[in-house]
Amino acid sequence: MSQSLNRGDPLAFGSYWKQMSDECTVVIKGWELMSYYSDSSNMCWFMLPELRDEIERLHHLVGNAVTKDKYIVVGNGSSQLFQAALFAVSPSDVSDHPINVVVTAPYYSEYKNAINVLHSRMFRWAGDATLYDENKPYIEVVTSPNNPDGTLRVPMVNSLAEGKLIHDLAYYWPQYTPINYEAGHDIMLFTFSKCTGHAGSRIGWAIVKDIAVAKKMATFVQSSTMGVSKESQTRAAKIIAVICDGYQNFKSNESELFFEYSKRLMRERWEKFRGAIEQSMVFNVTKYPRAHCNFTNEISETYPSFAWLKCEEGIENSHHCLRKLNICGREGERFGVDSKYVRISMLGIDDEFNEMVKRLSNAKKE
Amino acid sequence: MSQSLNRGDPLAFGSYWKQMSDECTVVIKGWELMSYYSDSSNMCWFMLPELRDEIERLHHLVGNAVTKDKYIVVGNGSSQLFQAALFAVSPSDVSDHPINVVVTAPYYSEYKNAINVLHSRMFRWAGDATLYDENKPYIEVVTSPNNPDGTLRVPMVNSLAEGKLIHDLAYYWPQYTPINYEAGHDIMLFTFSKCTGHAGSRIGWAIVKDIAVAKKMATFVQSSTMGVSKESQTRAAKIIAVICDGYQNFKSNESELFFEYSKRLMRERWEKFRGAIEQSMVFNVTKYPRAHCNFTNEISETYPSFAWLKCEEGIENSHHCLRKLNICGREGERFGVDSKYVRISMLGIDDEFNEMVKRLSNAKKE
Repeated sequence: MSQSLNRGDPLAFGSYWKQMSDECTVVIKGWELMSYYSDSSNMCWFMLPELRDEIERLHHLVGNAVTKDKYIVVGNGSSQLFQAALFAVSPSDVSDHPINVVVTAPYYSEYKNAINVLHSRMFRWAGDATLYDENKPYIEVVTSPNNPDGTLRVPMVNSLAEGKLIHDLAYYWPQYTPINYEAGHDIMLFTFSKCTGHAGSRIGWAIVKDIAVAKKMATFVQSSTMGVSKESQTRAAKIIAVICDGYQNFKSNESELFFEYSKRLMRERWEKFRGAIEQSMVFNVTKYPRAHCNFTNEISETYPSFAWLKCEEGIENSHHCLRKLNICGREGERFGVDSKYVRISMLGIDDEFNEMVKRLSNAKKE
Repeated sequence: MSQSLNRGDPLAFGSYWKQMSDECTVVIKGWELMSYYSDSSNMCWFMLPELRDEIERLHHLVGNAVTKDKYIVVGNGSSQLFQAALFAVSPSDVSDHPINVVVTAPYYSEYKNAINVLHSRMFRWAGDATLYDENKPYIEVVTSPNNPDGTLRVPMVNSLAEGKLIHDLAYYWPQYTPINYEAGHDIMLFTFSKCTGHAGSRIGWAIVKDIAVAKKMATFVQSSTMGVSKESQTRAAKIIAVICDGYQNFKSNESELFFEYSKRLMRERWEKFRGAIEQSMVFNVTKYPRAHCNFTNEISETYPSFAWLKCEEGIENSHHCLRKLNICGREGERFGVDSKYVRISMLGIDDEFNEMVKRLSNAKKE
């Protein structure tokens, strides 16, 4: 049977949450969470205060982002906050010249869809940031670590024009990459999906420096969806609290701590995976630099949630190559590069991952 | 203290859900509902099958909308599905002439915001449907019963141009209005918020005739929010099941049935409210026609979720008039009409409602 590893469904951490099932259980009664409103005193009036508190606590624990003197906006996944951020930083006098939005290739394939679906007069998809040569204002999206290729990214546009930045830090968590600085960018996007693996909850958050930008983002969420599911917010707050409590109670059994567990899982998977790739003689995969992680206090590698494969010289299409092994990846073209590249998910369930490694190791150059 | 009745927070039914607290409780464990996906075999892949089943069951029970041979799309509230529907029925060759979207005034104040926030090239807000005199294609939104004024609505545009219709049936439930026909329009929008009062869950659904339109709507939800909270979907399915089970088990105690309870509550409130209005000599409120309800099998009135007040001759501004009574309504201008009108919520909690009636009955012409 063919394996669908073209999507990024983060089911790998499910085994951890099974162990922690009781602590994380939420019980919601019929009459609870009925109102549209969560916190009338906050400009993000639909955000539950307990979720905001737990988000701040988590960033403080991990040290991956500054929340002090910043504003938090919750959204229906970081996808919605991506649109909200574009809306908030685009020029408010809407002309017939929408602002250009650029991202260095290879870029996350969904950015383009999220922009194009709106057909907005405010902003438009303008492709690869490294090729941007217009002398016009622009918005650059910096995804670090990057999806699909796991590399660390910095702004790349080389232009004298005024640029606004949106940092998508979905994967800036210790299981994927060493936490080597506390990010303090103007607009930072995070998602519960990639942090803990709870993609079905559709919870994302933005940490925003400028209150005017934060307010515009909240207005976008209000006008589009009139807020964010309270059931999901309640559950996200609970699960994040369980993670933080684990660290703050200094339990003796380290395997019970979420980032230790998830990082070990990613490391083991990547070791197996690299073994299979080396055997295969068909694909190459990037070697990532090692760095000190301030959170784990150890030197370690990056273990991206996706593997970004390039086929060896003489092979033109990685996707076809994987297809022959009954593995379905996502084609390089979707990420703005050529067919020599393909992305496959490292976050499937154990059986799926092990089967993929087995199939890969059987790959032979024809 | 001033009362905020300008919003439509539907808390009135909370007392019912307190009684039914145990039956409606949902318990979600840490490892459950993690995937993005709910039903890969459905074009609306993020919709939980149990929610779809319960939605169909509810419409079948109430008889307010045909679901047979139709497609259901779930959204983050009906607000998102409103945008999705506009996206789906707008011409796909996006030119510099966005299609006009019209609604008969007084119209729901948020339609305009939901359109304008996107600054889309596909569609634009074009105001009152009854004034539409362009010979160009258009989209007409028909809200029936209408927010703010509770009237039953039909399409009103008088033009030879091609028109598409979106029916917003948020209030087409037995507690608000007699169910006198089974609606079978091309695109019908419903929301959990107004049906049961669970606004915090942000669950809406569309019933769509044409699969191509339904697919486009699902694509919009995918690109904007990558689906809909599974926690909310699970809870909505459970609560709708409890309502349907109540009717299908034919319990002897009728007060336990949701629509009986909620209709009685609305009737009692409207009777009290009309009494206060008559005493006040300051405001008028529409008298609604009586009709046969196929669901309750009785002749009854409409009991809208909002009261739409018009001040008597000689008074210019209803909102100011209410302000003097320490009641904050939403101004007529927001709904496309003049300041003689104001909307106030009939769905607040009991204490709030009773206090409002007391204040209103003290109103005197100056």
